[in-house]
Amino acid sequence: MGSNKNSSVKAVTLQGTRALALQEFPYPDIEAGAVLLRIGFSGICGTDKHAFKGRTEQKGGQAIPLPIIPGHETVGTVAELGGEVLDHNGVPLNVGDRVVIAPNLPCGRCYACRNNLPYYYCREKRDYGNNIGAGDPPHLFGGWSEYLYALPGSHLFRYPETLPLEYGTFVEPLTVTACLDKARQWSSEWEPFRTGDTVVILGVGPIGIVHVAKARILGAGRVVAVDLSAFRLSVAAKFGASDTILGGSVGDVQQQVEQLTGGRGADVVVDCTGVPEGLIQSLELIREGGMVLEVGIFSDDGTVPLNPHRHILEKSARLIGVGGDELSAYDSSIRILEATKDTIPWHEAITHKFALEEADQAMETALGPESMKVVFAPA
Amino acid sequence: MGSNKNSSVKAVTLQGTRALALQEFPYPDIEAGAVLLRIGFSGICGTDKHAFKGRTEQKGGQAIPLPIIPGHETVGTVAELGGEVLDHNGVPLNVGDRVVIAPNLPCGRCYACRNNLPYYYCREKRDYGNNIGAGDPPHLFGGWSEYLYALPGSHLFRYPETLPLEYGTFVEPLTVTACLDKARQWSSEWEPFRTGDTVVILGVGPIGIVHVAKARILGAGRVVAVDLSAFRLSVAAKFGASDTILGGSVGDVQQQVEQLTGGRGADVVVDCTGVPEGLIQSLELIREGGMVLEVGIFSDDGTVPLNPHRHILEKSARLIGVGGDELSAYDSSIRILEATKDTIPWHEAITHKFALEEADQAMETALGPESMKVVFAPA
Amino acid sequence: MGSNKNSSVKAVTLQGTRALALQEFPYPDIEAGAVLLRIGFSGICGTDKHAFKGRTEQKGGQAIPLPIIPGHETVGTVAELGGEVLDHNGVPLNVGDRVVIAPNLPCGRCYACRNNLPYYYCREKRDYGNNIGAGDPPHLFGGWSEYLYALPGSHLFRYPETLPLEYGTFVEPLTVTACLDKARQWSSEWEPFRTGDTVVILGVGPIGIVHVAKARILGAGRVVAVDLSAFRLSVAAKFGASDTILGGSVGDVQQQVEQLTGGRGADVVVDCTGVPEGLIQSLELIREGGMVLEVGIFSDDGTVPLNPHRHILEKSARLIGVGGDELSAYDSSIRILEATKDTIPWHEAITHKFALEEADQAMETALGPESMKVVFAPA
Amino acid sequence: MGSNKNSSVKAVTLQGTRALALQEFPYPDIEAGAVLLRIGFSGICGTDKHAFKGRTEQKGGQAIPLPIIPGHETVGTVAELGGEVLDHNGVPLNVGDRVVIAPNLPCGRCYACRNNLPYYYCREKRDYGNNIGAGDPPHLFGGWSEYLYALPGSHLFRYPETLPLEYGTFVEPLTVTACLDKARQWSSEWEPFRTGDTVVILGVGPIGIVHVAKARILGAGRVVAVDLSAFRLSVAAKFGASDTILGGSVGDVQQQVEQLTGGRGADVVVDCTGVPEGLIQSLELIREGGMVLEVGIFSDDGTVPLNPHRHILEKSARLIGVGGDELSAYDSSIRILEATKDTIPWHEAITHKFALEEADQAMETALGPESMKVVFAPA
Repeated sequence: MGSNKNSSVKAVTLQGTRALALQEFPYPDIEAGAVLLRIGFSGICGTDKHAFKGRTEQKGGQAIPLPIIPGHETVGTVAELGGEVLDHNGVPLNVGDRVVIAPNLPCGRCYACRNNLPYYYCREKRDYGNNIGAGDPPHLFGGWSEYLYALPGSHLFRYPETLPLEYGTFVEPLTVTACLDKARQWSSEWEPFRTGDTVVILGVGPIGIVHVAKARILGAGRVVAVDLSAFRLSVAAKFGASDTILGGSVGDVQQQVEQLTGGRGADVVVDCTGVPEGLIQSLELIREGGMVLEVGIFSDDGTVPLNPHRHILEKSARLIGVGGDELSAYDSSIRILEATKDTIPWHEAITHKFALEEADQAMETALGPESMKVVFAPA
Repeated sequence: MGSNKNSSVKAVTLQGTRALALQEFPYPDIEAGAVLLRIGFSGICGTDKHAFKGRTEQKGGQAIPLPIIPGHETVGTVAELGGEVLDHNGVPLNVGDRVVIAPNLPCGRCYACRNNLPYYYCREKRDYGNNIGAGDPPHLFGGWSEYLYALPGSHLFRYPETLPLEYGTFVEPLTVTACLDKARQWSSEWEPFRTGDTVVILGVGPIGIVHVAKARILGAGRVVAVDLSAFRLSVAAKFGASDTILGGSVGDVQQQVEQLTGGRGADVVVDCTGVPEGLIQSLELIREGGMVLEVGIFSDDGTVPLNPHRHILEKSARLIGVGGDELSAYDSSIRILEATKDTIPWHEAITHKFALEEADQAMETALGPESMKVVFAPA
Repeated sequence: MGSNKNSSVKAVTLQGTRALALQEFPYPDIEAGAVLLRIGFSGICGTDKHAFKGRTEQKGGQAIPLPIIPGHETVGTVAELGGEVLDHNGVPLNVGDRVVIAPNLPCGRCYACRNNLPYYYCREKRDYGNNIGAGDPPHLFGGWSEYLYALPGSHLFRYPETLPLEYGTFVEPLTVTACLDKARQWSSEWEPFRTGDTVVILGVGPIGIVHVAKARILGAGRVVAVDLSAFRLSVAAKFGASDTILGGSVGDVQQQVEQLTGGRGADVVVDCTGVPEGLIQSLELIREGGMVLEVGIFSDDGTVPLNPHRHILEKSARLIGVGGDELSAYDSSIRILEATKDTIPWHEAITHKFALEEADQAMETALGPESMKVVFAPA
Repeated sequence: MGSNKNSSVKAVTLQGTRALALQEFPYPDIEAGAVLLRIGFSGICGTDKHAFKGRTEQKGGQAIPLPIIPGHETVGTVAELGGEVLDHNGVPLNVGDRVVIAPNLPCGRCYACRNNLPYYYCREKRDYGNNIGAGDPPHLFGGWSEYLYALPGSHLFRYPETLPLEYGTFVEPLTVTACLDKARQWSSEWEPFRTGDTVVILGVGPIGIVHVAKARILGAGRVVAVDLSAFRLSVAAKFGASDTILGGSVGDVQQQVEQLTGGRGADVVVDCTGVPEGLIQSLELIREGGMVLEVGIFSDDGTVPLNPHRHILEKSARLIGVGGDELSAYDSSIRILEATKDTIPWHEAITHKFALEEADQAMETALGPESMKVVFAPA
């Protein structure tokens, strides 16, 4: 490692709207408690696409401190350690260990942090790949880079040797699917999500596809994938979708879902469309007493007309906003990958791998309909 | 009883928009399994007011079969029995027994009924005081009457001698508050409704007031009542509201709720306003991760603009539509009345009692801001 | 069908301890609302083995009214209908329809039945294959027969043409696994049963094996099968067990489970051993805060020494007795079979099929360690 | 404060079996992040009595490091601060602030701590008043003292000026009652703990009495207190018990509970007896499908004969071991005190207050049947 000390580190930065650049940063010194990760793979997520297109406002209204190094779906190996550093479960890390890093670093001092609320309730949290600027040393706070500098207190999850390293980019997206675990927690006699239920995934891009897999893993009867892209539906089918519906009008989709469910409607709809109208369509698709999980609308794209009587009360709807994932879901997501590595073709959902030098092409590909997950492979 | 056979029965009927009439019907013969109830008290509910004002469309779009005898918050005594008839818990009824009758009679044959779903998922259900017309014999299918004819299979709940009979009109409204029990069921580490939480009741008319009582009974820390009527707020305070907020603008209410909660917002908001805007206001009032129970918007009054990102996802909102109550909540509602008869002044919420002959005046009073629950006292 | 009217019906009866007999009964007349089922397959269950060995006391202490026709895991086709009869979901049945019959017929009048409690809380329930004697006409109240007479009000579940008929014998055992759904319902931040958890199935005979499958279906990380029979463990592995432990001492098993779980212990243990000691062993195997589902000890085999401090309080144990299954689980069990027919080799768990004439041999086989599910195939 | 620097601090120490002593320790220097509390009141708890009687083994088998300063139900005021120190909710503390201190200090590094498990799953936790010896400086690690030295990272909860200071000794015991919140979380259609349910508290000493109050606060229909002491039952009645049963034989108690519940048995039993037999009695008292919360058996007093079939499976029992309380329950416990200060006579349950000089008399009183909570009042 010592030979790296004088070398530089390459990273992709977001400079402004639709402006990516390859930059070089100095190889950092490691403070006590910090970890330097050699990045294996780091994915392009919907949030990254939003930021690329100019939506650089975060929760609470603050602007993302450009330039940043994006990338928060990241897996790599420990390159250097600032003394003894523990993994999330309290076991000391060693150089060479494979780890997935949780992108979120809650402050640990506020009401939310002191009361075990999920990280996304913390108003002072720092997010790798998102709200820690690349301007100040040690700069390396995102995954689209050769190295990531993990600040003291970061949550590092041990990633097994028995899994392909690239599958590690699914860990963070899989934690989002903890909303389906919550839905199971809230099930009872006739409340969804029950074993055998029909779960509709509206939009099966990278975030939809992991919900397809998770719905299948948690005992859904039917998993219905809906998308405008035939390619994405074909991947969804391999990930566990029992039925696929190719876009069309809202009415068409509704009719097909009713046919599949004996006229009753879906028990659960996960809205992964990323557009405001997706929420209303989801409410139309559920059965009376059904549940909508709003997962996808991660930026403010305005309002839609909701009828409180018809959409909510008369329908006894359950509507849940999923503002983030949970640290407790990282380990279980890794175990999901282990348990399904032979039955779900995870590799087929990583449709493209790019070098850091190919950032523009990578983003262009990720924005198109013929890709699923697009990742950087800096190593 | 025999002397009644040739007599007639007085009842109030709804003939059309804003048209109530006192009618006489023949004293009925009792078929096997049926029960004739001598009505003690029967309340005027929000649904009755809606129907009076011309909103006579039911769920699913069918029209209420006018004329009907309204009244579904009903308590009385058994006047005649069609042979052995069991109460809801399987114990034979006797003439003279006090009972509350559940207004809803699910079909027992459909998917919902066969799978233990609450009655309001049954598409063939008959509702006393609502969708069984007064035109056909034995006519007496509502509570605003001297007698109610309970069809075979009706759910009759034994009402204790130790309680004032008039309190029985609170049993059905109290069953609606089972939504707060569900909120407790869905609580966990940081999910509401937890002991000590702040619960806001938006609108404290007759349906709001029972939610004030129930929130207090279930261990809320603060119960905040919001209304435009100072009179209603004064009753709410006696029912367990720790804080009251007199209407004003949305912003004012929000500011006061934030002050009461250290800037965090309400853990739970129960929307009992009965207007579509109440839902949006409720979503504004909850804390991140808070829950909205939509109880009040029982008729279709159009849409409101909802921002899926800001109101639902970013806020990690939980929004539950309460399409009805549950039969399993009747007995527990009666037990609530027993347990609180000395600590909650239930009688103060029955602000007016009327004879059947005073139907117009009763309705006018119920529609005004200076009344809480208005009941008919036919006996 | 008319030709059957004068013919007789063959059935296996249990006459007393270890005494089975092949008997002939008259082909019955069908009353209104009843259904005559042509039996396709009917399994031998642990309860049947207990009764065969002389344990003929039911819950509440009453004796089984010998002779009976055993058999309650039954699938067949509709042979005759007493007029219009609805399936469980309210759809009229036709002759020739495939159905699974729930063996339990709750009274519908008692407190439990009136309040939606599961059938096994009903004290007046009648159970096909168990507590309805064969002495009185129409006699045919069990599955080990050419025909079963389904009384009016029986719960008949439509069984799809797309599944092998014999899989229908798994439907009733699969409903027992609804306890794992309940465990998921009770999960939260750190309460089992969470995705990725380690679930130990103690004893993988016919009832254990369906819990192996269900634990896998519901998102367990590891499913650990423990048994004294290498054969049964080999089937368990095909049903989704990630690890198998061949019996040995309690200490051995505990050591292996701790090794598999990083020293923490199992999150969930399902006790399917059928012996009282299984419960204590289960409590030893769980982690702090783990859950034990007691499924197997269906007859009174005495007491075991429990240490309330060490086994329950200090360990923060959650211990759940599973007294029966739920009607709401039948349909979802059928949907599980549909969703897994290509991934779980259900047919390999039906190790033996016998004619009614081979009852002694069938029972002997079922009692041995080299069988899994043994079924009668009367058709 | 400076004047204290050379003075000494008085504290009660436990030296060995039945050996208490008044000792003097030096007034400590305050390290950064630490807090010195001036003790207002500190209670004598069942655990303290056990240790006094010689049971000085902790969870995991390690011995309590005698001598210790007992006392973990402690309320006081901030006397000195080691720089900026935050309360549990992230707000800086000031000298003079009233606070309740959580006795438990989890390590923050182990699997349990990193995964948000309650403190009692941490194997390295330090407990004020219990497992931090008084031998090493700064010595003051228990509540029976003029001052308590709160180590950096301690959980300090702001206690309101509007409550009598002595009520603060109920906060820690009230957190134990979070098991009843969990029971509500696990309720559903027919699972306890539902509104209107019958809750039996077996043993109404100091820990039983707070469960009486909590069961009432959470919407129980009947709260039945059972004890051998008429005095304790009289306090229980004031705390919300609707019915009291004076000890007697197990059969007597069972008969009375059945009478109160229409022959069905209790929905929930909280075992606060502190003897192993209490668990079996609790299992006898619940209805089918009822729940037992094992709260009281905090030391290993051996085994009791449990019948897995009859007590657990056939009864569909739910049995929960309550190994500790939760940090998230402290604030809600304080809010419970605020919400009930006018309706529950908390002061009547603090039957005796003693000076530190009266330790032997205090303990003797606490061990007798005519006391409820006994507290030291060092200030």
